[in-house]
Amino acid sequence: LTSRLPQVGTTIFSVMSALAAEHGAVNLGQGFPDFDCDPRLPDAVTAAMGAGHNQYPPMPGVPALREAVASKIEALHARQYSAATEITITAGATQAILTAILATVHPGDEVIVLEPCYDSYVPNVELAGGVAVRVPLTPGSFRPDFDKIGAAITPRTRAIIVNSPHNPSATVWSAEEMQQLQDLLAPTDILLISDEVYEHMVFDGAEHQSAARFPGLAARAFIVSSFGKTFHVTGWKVGTVAAPAALTAEFRKVHQFNVFTVNTPMQHGLAAYLQDSAPYLQLPAFYQAKRDLFRQGLEGSRLKLLPSAGSYFQCVDIAKVSDLSEADFCQWLTRELGVAAIPLSAFYRDGFDQRVVRFCFAKKDETLRAALERLRRL
Amino acid sequence: LTSRLPQVGTTIFSVMSALAAEHGAVNLGQGFPDFDCDPRLPDAVTAAMGAGHNQYPPMPGVPALREAVASKIEALHARQYSAATEITITAGATQAILTAILATVHPGDEVIVLEPCYDSYVPNVELAGGVAVRVPLTPGSFRPDFDKIGAAITPRTRAIIVNSPHNPSATVWSAEEMQQLQDLLAPTDILLISDEVYEHMVFDGAEHQSAARFPGLAARAFIVSSFGKTFHVTGWKVGTVAAPAALTAEFRKVHQFNVFTVNTPMQHGLAAYLQDSAPYLQLPAFYQAKRDLFRQGLEGSRLKLLPSAGSYFQCVDIAKVSDLSEADFCQWLTRELGVAAIPLSAFYRDGFDQRVVRFCFAKKDETLRAALERLRRL
Ligand SMILES: CSCCC(=O)C(=O)O
Ligand SMILES: CSCCC(=O)C(=O)O
Repeated sequence: LTSRLPQVGTTIFSVMSALAAEHGAVNLGQGFPDFDCDPRLPDAVTAAMGAGHNQYPPMPGVPALREAVASKIEALHARQYSAATEITITAGATQAILTAILATVHPGDEVIVLEPCYDSYVPNVELAGGVAVRVPLTPGSFRPDFDKIGAAITPRTRAIIVNSPHNPSATVWSAEEMQQLQDLLAPTDILLISDEVYEHMVFDGAEHQSAARFPGLAARAFIVSSFGKTFHVTGWKVGTVAAPAALTAEFRKVHQFNVFTVNTPMQHGLAAYLQDSAPYLQLPAFYQAKRDLFRQGLEGSRLKLLPSAGSYFQCVDIAKVSDLSEADFCQWLTRELGVAAIPLSAFYRDGFDQRVVRFCFAKKDETLRAALERLRRL
Repeated sequence: LTSRLPQVGTTIFSVMSALAAEHGAVNLGQGFPDFDCDPRLPDAVTAAMGAGHNQYPPMPGVPALREAVASKIEALHARQYSAATEITITAGATQAILTAILATVHPGDEVIVLEPCYDSYVPNVELAGGVAVRVPLTPGSFRPDFDKIGAAITPRTRAIIVNSPHNPSATVWSAEEMQQLQDLLAPTDILLISDEVYEHMVFDGAEHQSAARFPGLAARAFIVSSFGKTFHVTGWKVGTVAAPAALTAEFRKVHQFNVFTVNTPMQHGLAAYLQDSAPYLQLPAFYQAKRDLFRQGLEGSRLKLLPSAGSYFQCVDIAKVSDLSEADFCQWLTRELGVAAIPLSAFYRDGFDQRVVRFCFAKKDETLRAALERLRRL
């Protein structure tokens, strides 16, 4: 048996979560909350099951949920999407991204990915028979380098994947940067896959600049969101894709032959929950307080804090505390100090080591304090 | 934008369900129950959500559910699978099949599919860059023709997809046929994707011959099951794949970059439900009664009943009631008579019309009676 993904092992998030469990470590590795969701959300799912919503939903998703998503995008970004033909509910954001790639990338096509990036992007492109063209974000600042991106464009470039707020670096693209991307793509027919799963975690008064706000981007974009990340239910695996009708038509062709549909009770529960509230509006303050708690706890330590402008991640430079590689340091930290983190090298195909590791602060304050107490021993 | 699936439209099941809804037709088209599941099942999901099982489960699935699946296979088919390395929980059977194909089929590889077949198989192979080699089941009886299958094998054949009990024809492979398949594949390294989602719907005292029962098949097989079909919760989208460790390792590489994981509360709920009962043991009698009700209702009509040995489908020959093509007949039947059915041509890439349509009898007795009343007008 010849592997389709010879360079791929088990995703780093599973590896580090298993290691954390084995060593009783505080798990600041894999990105998921250790606190529960609003109890009204499971209640709404229970009501949906009780009402008999247990069979296949319509293939693109439960209409009420698609409408809620369209309303939300209009309220936040002043762009109208048709719930009927431009919004699709997915089994999480990862499935959305693979599906968008399978639907649009032909064998031999190139897709530009900006490294570091979420570890599914490159294998996703390769599964479609495409070539992932890896362009580094600016070392140190992790900002997009439009000269480098421009130089990577060829006649075979089919798409570019952009992710803001950014996992793992916690940078947030500015309106100017989105505009620059729009200008760069304007003369091309390159598609945009805009991974916006951390859209509601943007700090210090900044605003998330969704691709939906930029007409020249929205017209070519699959915009990917995640209910799991927004509502503290990462295990529910419900996400969305907003895309112009022509793109959505191709997306759905593949979606129907991938998962076909997405969990009916969860969709009804989310639709009901969204009807009378916009709970994501509280997320920036909620997560900013956690970020600040975590950063303050590390001030004065020899871990150098990088900026965290969005997402639920905080990166630190380990150069002053260890001679180990990032990857070895994370192993050591989990085993010996009892705190799990993710090495940034896991977000580069070639394992580039810049002595930076990522912590997830989507945790109870007491969890963060327990981790800080251990980290201060460094 | 050039389509990756130019020959594909919206799946026939969605098309016919939408048409049925529009015309208030009794929907015997798309295969899903119109009755609800055992209430203990949603209760178990509610308990799981209440216990805080709302974040990512382990990537291959909740261990208790994987163990329940392994125990069930051992009890029914006397084959041991390791829950740790050989069972994976999927977002339904369709996702399982696409993932198995993406994990093993390289560009240019051939995959044998036996037509008629579920409409995702051929596009799935094409999305992997493979070539679907379509071999017809024997016209009339829908039994496998091993001469034809053997003749289709080439050095590029990577896999064959088999489905018993069979959708749409309702045939069930005998032990002898499975043995013949085993013999045919023995000198090759061709993989088997065994779609066994109707495993618990086998009638008249026959037994489901899982690939798990045949060592030479099990060693090369991805065996695909569906909780949705077995427990009347098609909208929950939870399935499983059992495969030898080497195959499972490749499967999980792709799975983790497709859906990553599957709905946590549903997995815990199913695991709890399976712990103290084996409710699927009642399914053959339950569905056989519905099959008999439906068949008896059509006796003496001009719709010719084909055998239904398994699955929840009943095929009928329409030659004596209409001059329309199958596809047009199904449209007419839905619009004019108020009963939705699926034309068998939808299960052939080239739309082959043999004047046979498929009804789904996974419906309340009163639904079946309402449909019969209309069908008797033919
Ligand atoms: C789906 S993997 C785990 C969550 C995540 O996105 C991350 O930790 O980066
Ligand atoms: C996943 S589509 C609907 C159910 C089905 O398998 C069928 O009707 O054949």
